[in-house]
Amino acid sequence: MSGGTGIKDTRSVSDLEEDLKQNSERDLEKDSPGDLKKDAGRDLKKKQEKGSDAHTSLYRESLAMHRRLGGVLEVASKVRLHTIHDLSVAYTPGVAEPCRKISDDPELVYLYTLKRNTVAVVTDGSAVLGLGNIGPYAALPVMEGKAIIFKEFAGIDAFPICLDTQETEEVIKAVKYLAPAFGGINLEDISAPRCFEIEFRLREELELPVMHDDQHGTAIVVFAGLLNALKIVNKELSELKIVISGLGAAGVAIFRFLVRAGADPARILACDSKGLVYEGREKGMNPVKEEIARLTNPGKLKGGLENAFPDADLFIGVSVGGIVTEDMVRSMAKNAIVMAMANPVPEIMPDAAKRAGARIVATGRSDFPNQLNNCLSFPGVFKGALSTCARKITPEMEMAAAHALAKVVTISELSEDHIIPDPLDRHVVPAVAKAVASASLESCVARKKHEDKA
Amino acid sequence: MSGGTGIKDTRSVSDLEEDLKQNSERDLEKDSPGDLKKDAGRDLKKKQEKGSDAHTSLYRESLAMHRRLGGVLEVASKVRLHTIHDLSVAYTPGVAEPCRKISDDPELVYLYTLKRNTVAVVTDGSAVLGLGNIGPYAALPVMEGKAIIFKEFAGIDAFPICLDTQETEEVIKAVKYLAPAFGGINLEDISAPRCFEIEFRLREELELPVMHDDQHGTAIVVFAGLLNALKIVNKELSELKIVISGLGAAGVAIFRFLVRAGADPARILACDSKGLVYEGREKGMNPVKEEIARLTNPGKLKGGLENAFPDADLFIGVSVGGIVTEDMVRSMAKNAIVMAMANPVPEIMPDAAKRAGARIVATGRSDFPNQLNNCLSFPGVFKGALSTCARKITPEMEMAAAHALAKVVTISELSEDHIIPDPLDRHVVPAVAKAVASASLESCVARKKHEDKA
Repeated sequence: MSGGTGIKDTRSVSDLEEDLKQNSERDLEKDSPGDLKKDAGRDLKKKQEKGSDAHTSLYRESLAMHRRLGGVLEVASKVRLHTIHDLSVAYTPGVAEPCRKISDDPELVYLYTLKRNTVAVVTDGSAVLGLGNIGPYAALPVMEGKAIIFKEFAGIDAFPICLDTQETEEVIKAVKYLAPAFGGINLEDISAPRCFEIEFRLREELELPVMHDDQHGTAIVVFAGLLNALKIVNKELSELKIVISGLGAAGVAIFRFLVRAGADPARILACDSKGLVYEGREKGMNPVKEEIARLTNPGKLKGGLENAFPDADLFIGVSVGGIVTEDMVRSMAKNAIVMAMANPVPEIMPDAAKRAGARIVATGRSDFPNQLNNCLSFPGVFKGALSTCARKITPEMEMAAAHALAKVVTISELSEDHIIPDPLDRHVVPAVAKAVASASLESCVARKKHEDKA
Repeated sequence: MSGGTGIKDTRSVSDLEEDLKQNSERDLEKDSPGDLKKDAGRDLKKKQEKGSDAHTSLYRESLAMHRRLGGVLEVASKVRLHTIHDLSVAYTPGVAEPCRKISDDPELVYLYTLKRNTVAVVTDGSAVLGLGNIGPYAALPVMEGKAIIFKEFAGIDAFPICLDTQETEEVIKAVKYLAPAFGGINLEDISAPRCFEIEFRLREELELPVMHDDQHGTAIVVFAGLLNALKIVNKELSELKIVISGLGAAGVAIFRFLVRAGADPARILACDSKGLVYEGREKGMNPVKEEIARLTNPGKLKGGLENAFPDADLFIGVSVGGIVTEDMVRSMAKNAIVMAMANPVPEIMPDAAKRAGARIVATGRSDFPNQLNNCLSFPGVFKGALSTCARKITPEMEMAAAHALAKVVTISELSEDHIIPDPLDRHVVPAVAKAVASASLESCVARKKHEDKA
């Protein structure tokens, strides 16, 4: 089960362990060694069903909870308002003074208002979870969930902004208009390729940390896991032969992150729903895929995902469940690493991948080891950026986040089944935040010196 | 001091009384009967200084508090996130289920999300308090203050949105874009005449309760106070000769509200900084003032405010401090009502107005009787509108709010010094909310039947 050794929050260890135990028992009921003898097809089907069963109960519980509470997020006052005096200090006439100070020096908005600790969680509802373009209303429960993770994990005040437009230029404009009250902008569940332009432009045009979590949040976690996996398999990033399946927000960001970190693009093969990407391909391209086509696949290999696998050291899947077979994994290089992150059903189930010889397997699921979960990155990244009132999130800050995240797993903890901290590990956010804050100072995007409160 | 008899919140009575006592002592130090003999000019100057002294200390205290806390508002989670199971219910995969439900039926966003209890407090920073166009950053402390009043008084989750544009069309667009997560839109501190177009258009184009508080919030409280004042002076609204000083957001809204309620526009004289408004005036007009010029002042009286006063039954000031003299009040009709709401210094100080023969005097200040404070209207109006998931705020809902607010002062409590409830009176919000909810049902703008939880 995911990262039992990584649990360091003593306040909730017993709850967590009880929960993990139940998950574990529920899963293991159908996961006896006997199952391993059955053929991969039947096994996958069974796993999918099992996933659905467990999910059905979570769906019911989630629905009931959201209904009972009227959403999971609320706004709270930091002060009491019991007397006329209280009102006069928190509101008029007293409040005129912080207003005047900020009017004289706009940077003081970080000193006197919630801006210093507040992030907007912005979506247009165009690519929500695995549900697709369900629009801004139906996206709201996810954004609320995101906001409570910000609060619980990093103490950040995050508020959901669900935009009633999917025009790229209008989304950009809307976010710029509402930016003054926020210290950071977390973009969420915006469809590719629009998300690239939207994030790029907002990073250019706003003096605020802006991060599309589906891109960089994911890339940071994947790269952190990879850093640790490489220690185990003893391979060099620059020599890895890499297969990426899925060129949406996450796939593209992971590609860019890996290349920036030193991976050789000529050793990367990227695949989308139309098959391998190569220069000159005509179907289903966009400017970002053209860029990837130019840099990767120098042999212009064509065809399906299976053609990419032979001798690959690393498979990264951010696509759809069940598309990778044991045979494909079997054709990979020795000490292969499989990161199969489609949700809820991974590209290949961990037991099948292991059976086919993969040395390290990671997924996006909490009921298997090595859960690559964005919760491990975005709270710490924004906490670090907010702590210096950063003007930007730079590539250096993202890279620092990945290295810090990887290092939370100590050498003694490191194993094939523990390349990434548990999502609930309370060491993660402080470590990532500290690294990001330092990097923001080095990148000269900090408005103030980071006060290390450690 | 303001409405001691109206204090019904037993939890804070002692705090409040202590506070009121201190305020009272502080003010009375300089307000001995001896002062009354001095001339009005010196007296006004002294009062202004006194106002400044008291304010200076509030300013200091407010600044320190906003700095210490980093703003007065925060976001909170309604659920704990201690286990993987907690995460799976509040966030993925469980959250997919409320998303799917809302995707199938968008109205269910009121059932499963924070929308049902959440209001956006929106400004463009163009007319903040008495500070003018200080922009969206400097406006943020006021919006935070507004939000905590929403929470404390009405249990509503309100979040500040400070827009980085003052283009009328762009403000309208931005609010429409960010509307999905909100059950209501409270516009705040937007300059006239832009505020009229912005509110009108948003009320037309959004299926949400939208209210510019500086307009309707103020008009509701003024009219509630007037309803009670008329009981004391035993006059009819339709026969009142009324002077309105100030034709910004509040003045225009009060004018419209009074006429809608039955005041005779031919008996109203309206004044702005350029003097009396009359048909054909050329200086400092705008479409809204043209409308007022057509309806009022049939004798085309010209000149300054002093020309409007003779025989007036009611003065309503939402303009600037100190512009009304005792002589002007002396020229009013018997049993005159003076509502001098300029802040922090009223158009005329209450003691001067009383000395000059006014029977009832109200201001915007907490240190005098009859404080006409928007806190008395907007929390209850939005609470009522949210309770029926209203599509609009109709004139009928606003009128119902004013009548309900007036009735919170019982006949036995009613007096010259108590025409309006105290801002901290806990009976106000439930009474106003109930009336507004009923009116929303009668106006057929409710999405659901109001469940009376009384």
